[in-house]
Amino acid sequence: MTPPQGDADDANEADGAERYVVGVDFGTLSGRAVVVRVRDGEELESAVHTYRHGVIDRELPTTGETLPPDWALQHPDDWREVLRTAVPAAVAASGVDPAAVIGIGTDFTACTVLPVLRDGTPLAESGLGHRPHAWPKLWKHHAAQGQADRINHLAHQRCEKWISRYGGKISAEWQYAKALQVLEEDPATYAVTERWIEAADWIVWQLTGAESRNTCTAGYKGIHQDGQYPGEDYLGALHPGFADFARSRLEHPLLPLGSRAGSLTAEAAAWTGLPAGIAVAAGNVDAHVAAAAAQAVENGRLLAVMGTSTCHVVNGPALAEVPGICGVVDGGIVEGAYGYEAGQSAVGDIFAWWLAQGVPAGYQDEADAAGESVHQLLTRKAAGQPVGGHGLVALDWMNGNRSPLVDHHLSGVIVGLTLATRPEEIYRALLESTAFGTRVIVDGLEQGGVPVDEFIVTGGLKQNGLLMQIYADVLRRPVSLAYSDQGPALGSAIHAAVAAGAHPDVRTAAAAMGRVLSAAFRPDTARADAYDALYAEYRSLHEHFGAGPDKQLHRLRAIRNAALTDDRDSEVRTP
Amino acid sequence: MTPPQGDADDANEADGAERYVVGVDFGTLSGRAVVVRVRDGEELESAVHTYRHGVIDRELPTTGETLPPDWALQHPDDWREVLRTAVPAAVAASGVDPAAVIGIGTDFTACTVLPVLRDGTPLAESGLGHRPHAWPKLWKHHAAQGQADRINHLAHQRCEKWISRYGGKISAEWQYAKALQVLEEDPATYAVTERWIEAADWIVWQLTGAESRNTCTAGYKGIHQDGQYPGEDYLGALHPGFADFARSRLEHPLLPLGSRAGSLTAEAAAWTGLPAGIAVAAGNVDAHVAAAAAQAVENGRLLAVMGTSTCHVVNGPALAEVPGICGVVDGGIVEGAYGYEAGQSAVGDIFAWWLAQGVPAGYQDEADAAGESVHQLLTRKAAGQPVGGHGLVALDWMNGNRSPLVDHHLSGVIVGLTLATRPEEIYRALLESTAFGTRVIVDGLEQGGVPVDEFIVTGGLKQNGLLMQIYADVLRRPVSLAYSDQGPALGSAIHAAVAAGAHPDVRTAAAAMGRVLSAAFRPDTARADAYDALYAEYRSLHEHFGAGPDKQLHRLRAIRNAALTDDRDSEVRTP
Repeated sequence: MTPPQGDADDANEADGAERYVVGVDFGTLSGRAVVVRVRDGEELESAVHTYRHGVIDRELPTTGETLPPDWALQHPDDWREVLRTAVPAAVAASGVDPAAVIGIGTDFTACTVLPVLRDGTPLAESGLGHRPHAWPKLWKHHAAQGQADRINHLAHQRCEKWISRYGGKISAEWQYAKALQVLEEDPATYAVTERWIEAADWIVWQLTGAESRNTCTAGYKGIHQDGQYPGEDYLGALHPGFADFARSRLEHPLLPLGSRAGSLTAEAAAWTGLPAGIAVAAGNVDAHVAAAAAQAVENGRLLAVMGTSTCHVVNGPALAEVPGICGVVDGGIVEGAYGYEAGQSAVGDIFAWWLAQGVPAGYQDEADAAGESVHQLLTRKAAGQPVGGHGLVALDWMNGNRSPLVDHHLSGVIVGLTLATRPEEIYRALLESTAFGTRVIVDGLEQGGVPVDEFIVTGGLKQNGLLMQIYADVLRRPVSLAYSDQGPALGSAIHAAVAAGAHPDVRTAAAAMGRVLSAAFRPDTARADAYDALYAEYRSLHEHFGAGPDKQLHRLRAIRNAALTDDRDSEVRTP
Repeated sequence: MTPPQGDADDANEADGAERYVVGVDFGTLSGRAVVVRVRDGEELESAVHTYRHGVIDRELPTTGETLPPDWALQHPDDWREVLRTAVPAAVAASGVDPAAVIGIGTDFTACTVLPVLRDGTPLAESGLGHRPHAWPKLWKHHAAQGQADRINHLAHQRCEKWISRYGGKISAEWQYAKALQVLEEDPATYAVTERWIEAADWIVWQLTGAESRNTCTAGYKGIHQDGQYPGEDYLGALHPGFADFARSRLEHPLLPLGSRAGSLTAEAAAWTGLPAGIAVAAGNVDAHVAAAAAQAVENGRLLAVMGTSTCHVVNGPALAEVPGICGVVDGGIVEGAYGYEAGQSAVGDIFAWWLAQGVPAGYQDEADAAGESVHQLLTRKAAGQPVGGHGLVALDWMNGNRSPLVDHHLSGVIVGLTLATRPEEIYRALLESTAFGTRVIVDGLEQGGVPVDEFIVTGGLKQNGLLMQIYADVLRRPVSLAYSDQGPALGSAIHAAVAAGAHPDVRTAAAAMGRVLSAAFRPDTARADAYDALYAEYRSLHEHFGAGPDKQLHRLRAIRNAALTDDRDSEVRTP
């Protein structure tokens, strides 16, 4: 399934001198810049700048005002600071002549979104810094759940066509819930909000001096479908003052990914040390842009960004209804294909939970004696087990289920415990449970009409060989590994190369500049057969606890919440 | 519900001199003798003798022959040695004049059973010591499962009336499966077996010089119901040579518990240092005899012997069909009442499993710093939680389910896990799961027509205050604690006092000599209400995983067994 390698010479100027691009990945706590050779994607050097304000979730930097629970803000100048420090540092470290840099591309967490004036000035920097709602809301700002609930209820009530493109549920993290929260809680700030813009687009505005919007965030976070945003009647039914929200504050021509949003301004050139006038790529999102770095841009090649949680992105040739996906967007990953996104709420978090909670003191001693980490010890012990030998099956819902159930009130289950069950057996069952959860998603995509031929992994968990082999066996598919450890930054650089015209399109650029260790893990037929039997048991639990009429996990959560809310009289006396 | 105290003066001779009895409890690894004052049950002193051969499960002491898996034998002279050492040691330590001892009573593990000659000589000591099947089979000899399966299949096929008195299943541990194994695997040894006798009765034979049989073991382990053993046609259908098994090798008048089986022989007087001619009580079983020590002999007062597993015994006024009980026997605990026995396959074993497996190194450090054990630390942390605050519910089937499902192929389940779940929360959920399992049994007894008014606990777990309070709250019943830490030995002494005529019957003797801390733990209404909600969730899991049509836990066990049987090709490679 490996696409033909692009002609590397395309990326060179006539004189044969090497050309370079810079990719900048804006994460949750820091921004990373990487200098990449246009010809072959070689990553020369990178630099990281940690945000001075980090995640603002306790008090407002300006006034010290305490923020309510579930709030999460960021400071726009922390982002500019990445341009002023990490970019020149990476270029300097690489030894590349800045004049040889022909483009810059960026990606961002999403939906991270902010209110700005018509000229792009953040409200937080325009005299409203004392108002919490004037600040950029980070993706994990979770205080607009009430608004999201109403958005979803009304959408289903009105049978809005777009709701099924998002697994039937719009997240509280996305553009509308956050904006509606501003309108309802601080109408004055909403009133002076001239544009409501993703940080992904705002950072491009800083580089080019002009507003632009990209297909990816507009589709996945802005409910832009079939060429339009939700209608004024729908928005007005949410709140009369919200009717013109999309028209007045979002509407703008959308740029395909990899297109040239504009040219680097003199001011941004001064910040970055890059030549003024070079190409600036349209904004993008971290997970989606990484597909190019892992050559996962062809249809059927699914990229799984596996870390604390997993995000799946895959391209398909047609629009299909797939239950429980995060979203499907025309050109959402690469132009000319439908980009599907799905997710698992917790993956590495589950393994870390078990490592922290479920490993007895004796194992720590054993690991110390062997000069290895507890993780290595547990992996070694787990790797020696035959498939199914632990007699266990678990549901990986310790942080809810994103796809396909879109239900964050679910919780985890472990079945089959005996007095002989050991920690490494539960550990292995937890690894397998996430693989089964992935298989549910992959099977759902295929049944919905989106082929998945290859499973490509990027992110920290690709280092876990046992986990990768389990995924290959459970999915009955080769598991490939993205080569780069900074996939989003490399992906942004690849998009910059396309924006600069060094490659004709993202697919060609990905073939030339991305790198993947193809089929690093191959399924073993005997193990895959054994896993089919365990997967049937996982599906049985999935149906009973997640999809069936008995909402036991919801009841247990309600019992828990009630108990924790009022535990004054219920503490058990220990005589 | 406390019965009126018996007149203590009954227990004294006319001259006012104190009289004493000796109780001897034959356990799995040792025998314990206790000297008890007849008037009030005061335990003066005790002594323990550890069996020299312990559990014989590896090789035959005589020949060194390796025993097959699941075998467990004992040496009859280890038991006599208890009479020769522990009894005189206890009497000497107590300072009591042996002439003041008026009776001796015994109890035994069951079904521990042996082949003997007509004069009581164990086959193992009659020149057949080189044949494994000539030896006493300990209760946990589990090598006759095939025979038990056939016994059950045939009983159901023939609609034998007695099968429903045993929860629908005769155990491989009991008299018939073990005897049939001898017949089928070593017919020569079976042929010279003149009597097949419980160790509980054999030890009385050693003391009195004459065979006797007791109501308790005949009923619970010998399928003696409505005055008869299973018929010859049934037994003959199991194996033609087995037809006369009960008639020729078991049949003998049955003695009520607490009756005088005979008088101490001169030989046994020499062993024990007790006066020849004193009363010897009929044989008994450890759990059942302990009811007298805990004053749990009146109807409705359930005794739970709580240790690694739990055995429940309770008297009821009438014969009732209770699904899943271990057995119901007329006079099986005390004369004039129907004795019901039920059980939980694992209780303390589950807590020990979690303490060994589920507590991380940091907790060990925290406990060390606080100068407490990990168990104390976990108990303290668990005690602080409001009921339901962990959001968890577990099935306590880590060693299968004895009552009411009689299914040892079940396994444990934990539901409701989140990334915030801590070890002490799982620990508490496990404590609660055993309480819910007990409530299923108690509810089943009551629904079957056997009232349970009070829950009395003996055994090691009565020390666990948090657990006892949880049981009181979950059961909505007062939990009382047996006062004695050697309930079976005290219970045997009480039966000796009755056999000696010092008390008119076991009920009166138990009132005078037993002691119980009544309602040491009382249910709290608010917590009991909260537990009702959690118990409903437990029942839901019980139905789904244990009683429903979906045998998922059986399938997982089959998958496990198949994987462990043939794991050559299925070991996962870890690159």
